[in-house]
Amino acid sequence: MADQVLSSHEEGEIYQRQGFGKRSGLGRGPALVIVDLVNGFADPAAFGGGNIRGAIAETQGLLEFARSMSWPVAFTRIVFADDGSDANAFSRKVPWLLSLTEENPQSAVVRELAPLSGELVLRKRLPSAFAGTDLAAWLTRRNVDTLVVAGATTSGCVRATVVDAMGSGFLVVVAADCVGDRAEGPHRAGLFDIAQKYADLMNAQDIRKLLRSFEKRSAGGAND
Amino acid sequence: MADQVLSSHEEGEIYQRQGFGKRSGLGRGPALVIVDLVNGFADPAAFGGGNIRGAIAETQGLLEFARSMSWPVAFTRIVFADDGSDANAFSRKVPWLLSLTEENPQSAVVRELAPLSGELVLRKRLPSAFAGTDLAAWLTRRNVDTLVVAGATTSGCVRATVVDAMGSGFLVVVAADCVGDRAEGPHRAGLFDIAQKYADLMNAQDIRKLLRSFEKRSAGGAND
Amino acid sequence: MADQVLSSHEEGEIYQRQGFGKRSGLGRGPALVIVDLVNGFADPAAFGGGNIRGAIAETQGLLEFARSMSWPVAFTRIVFADDGSDANAFSRKVPWLLSLTEENPQSAVVRELAPLSGELVLRKRLPSAFAGTDLAAWLTRRNVDTLVVAGATTSGCVRATVVDAMGSGFLVVVAADCVGDRAEGPHRAGLFDIAQKYADLMNAQDIRKLLRSFEKRSAGGAND
Amino acid sequence: MADQVLSSHEEGEIYQRQGFGKRSGLGRGPALVIVDLVNGFADPAAFGGGNIRGAIAETQGLLEFARSMSWPVAFTRIVFADDGSDANAFSRKVPWLLSLTEENPQSAVVRELAPLSGELVLRKRLPSAFAGTDLAAWLTRRNVDTLVVAGATTSGCVRATVVDAMGSGFLVVVAADCVGDRAEGPHRAGLFDIAQKYADLMNAQDIRKLLRSFEKRSAGGAND
Repeated sequence: MADQVLSSHEEGEIYQRQGFGKRSGLGRGPALVIVDLVNGFADPAAFGGGNIRGAIAETQGLLEFARSMSWPVAFTRIVFADDGSDANAFSRKVPWLLSLTEENPQSAVVRELAPLSGELVLRKRLPSAFAGTDLAAWLTRRNVDTLVVAGATTSGCVRATVVDAMGSGFLVVVAADCVGDRAEGPHRAGLFDIAQKYADLMNAQDIRKLLRSFEKRSAGGAND
Repeated sequence: MADQVLSSHEEGEIYQRQGFGKRSGLGRGPALVIVDLVNGFADPAAFGGGNIRGAIAETQGLLEFARSMSWPVAFTRIVFADDGSDANAFSRKVPWLLSLTEENPQSAVVRELAPLSGELVLRKRLPSAFAGTDLAAWLTRRNVDTLVVAGATTSGCVRATVVDAMGSGFLVVVAADCVGDRAEGPHRAGLFDIAQKYADLMNAQDIRKLLRSFEKRSAGGAND
Repeated sequence: MADQVLSSHEEGEIYQRQGFGKRSGLGRGPALVIVDLVNGFADPAAFGGGNIRGAIAETQGLLEFARSMSWPVAFTRIVFADDGSDANAFSRKVPWLLSLTEENPQSAVVRELAPLSGELVLRKRLPSAFAGTDLAAWLTRRNVDTLVVAGATTSGCVRATVVDAMGSGFLVVVAADCVGDRAEGPHRAGLFDIAQKYADLMNAQDIRKLLRSFEKRSAGGAND
Repeated sequence: MADQVLSSHEEGEIYQRQGFGKRSGLGRGPALVIVDLVNGFADPAAFGGGNIRGAIAETQGLLEFARSMSWPVAFTRIVFADDGSDANAFSRKVPWLLSLTEENPQSAVVRELAPLSGELVLRKRLPSAFAGTDLAAWLTRRNVDTLVVAGATTSGCVRATVVDAMGSGFLVVVAADCVGDRAEGPHRAGLFDIAQKYADLMNAQDIRKLLRSFEKRSAGGAND
């Protein structure tokens, strides 16, 4: 997988020579984080397009698997206040984000991936799922050491989440066919950088195959 | 003010000798942060008691002043998910916190201090208003360099907020008559530590007197 | 232990009625964090005094135990730059801190607890060991879910570290006889608040007894 | 500038239609952050190559200008401990990073940009200058609201720094000719994403022209 991405840049050779792109590998406590797969990012007339619809379809199987293994599952939604009181530097650059209010259907997780009770639905106002949120603490509290990441967009919120996940001490696997972007160039460039410096890339099927042998997580919550 | 608190511990002398308790002073861009003055902390039968009711009364005037000066104003509320999916190490230690869900009236800001449109209402799940939130970014984006802090409880969420505010690079003034606690001992011990190491203490009246001369903030939001 | 601290405030009863002070309990992956036990905090003529010398003595046995169990061990030191370029809001309040430069013997870990190769020595410029550092990531990467905390001062850097450790998703045990403060009042008030809201309190001997049965950590580092 | 980058992807049109790429604009308090322009990233035989040498040359004039305007200036260096005790998820992916120890000449800021006394030299172990550091607090304490960013690599540590700067509430201008990368594809892809979502792009000359009219910063440090 990483090789395929590498070849998208002639520069792969430079990175290899300088010692990038080693495998992070897996820990023992996985969790699934699904970034911004909300209606507004599934809709090409809004913030979607490209291969995001396909990523949603592939993520369904991955989510089903994560649930069967009792992994902690977290979804992110971008949500700004109705009165715009929490506008920020991101919404200055991309003003449309301010329309993603709590009740706007565009900010709801897509129907195919509807969260179950007990799964975390994290509101955020920045690209990374970790920025200005308690996600790192939530994962640590649940003995997670490895993040499997799906979502949109590859070059934006997924990538920022991956960088921060690594920076928060987690090993990260990006489910390469479960992440999508509105445009092909940034998608591929994002996967290249991720594979070189931040995380491992695997297809959902390989992730399932590899992680099936892991111990099921105990189902208990953080207050048990 | 600080002297009065100092005298509550014979140990004040040690701190003075070791060079603690210098004044932070004020910057040029103040904001008001009101910590957890929600119904549940105003109610002695729930999480309230002590001098918290008095702190709410004093905070009314301070809030009115902040609004007249067009300061950024932020309120915090503790809010956990209905399904307990975001339970954490804090709610393990104090399980009652999990009852503070979005629609529980106990988690609503008290009527006397009802937020206006454009003021930030920040949901949090930890003691500090900065922990797992984007409050520091919100303040920075609004050119704030000085925080005036009111709320409850002095020894808990107020103090944690003050420590993190200082750690985030802000100068901090605690409005000593606008913070309250369910019990007197922790309230006084909290003020002592705050005055020695983290912030300046002033009464609301003195804060108003001193800051009245400051330039009014421009009313613009972060997306203007 | 907690009871003993509770009784130092008549207010313990209020906290009990309101449901504070439940036990956090222990996870499966402990680490030892030793906060600011440097020469300057051991020396009553500098920043020390009170029961800090006693805390250092007790911490020796705890450190020896942690090493025998191959726990990750982290020490903190306050270190400011020689040219004062990193002065902050904390050093405004307590200017003496700026003298704790890299080569100042006052900022070195006390001889009795000298760090071994492979143990983390974390430089910090704020009260909490987590503030402006990568400690949370370091612990997460090493599969830690439980922090045993020793150090100085109870009411200052230890307490701030405990609050942030809990906020970062760790369960926390404060080794009550391994933390010290320059003055008795703040020490006891700090332990009271910690026991009520943030962590469990145990003596070092009980910690050793309880955790001896835990699996030894594998000795591997984060790059293995 | 942004247009030039936009044209590097046919996808610019999609982003424009969806409302990306608005200008952040400038605040009133600029600072200069120079990311990882150390010997190891200037040397093609180590971690350098591509247009990094050129970025260093252009950064000289920008640094001179920032100094003439008394802006706060911060440099970052990647520094790991001699004993590898602070290895992390990043160094797993890119093991060579562990060789950047305090005394390794490869981790020293390049001679052309040698920091002056009073300028911040920030040690970091992650891509972003903000991750696991107190940079945001340092800037906030100095009333900074706008970051001018130079350094290497565009697709790595510069980009991660830009995303976090925006997430920390700062407006960001990337000096497009003062950032460099070991390979052209990631460099251009990085600039495209940055211009669309996180920051404004300007050449150093235009930055100097535009910001020359700004008030000089007062030279005082944080403890004055």
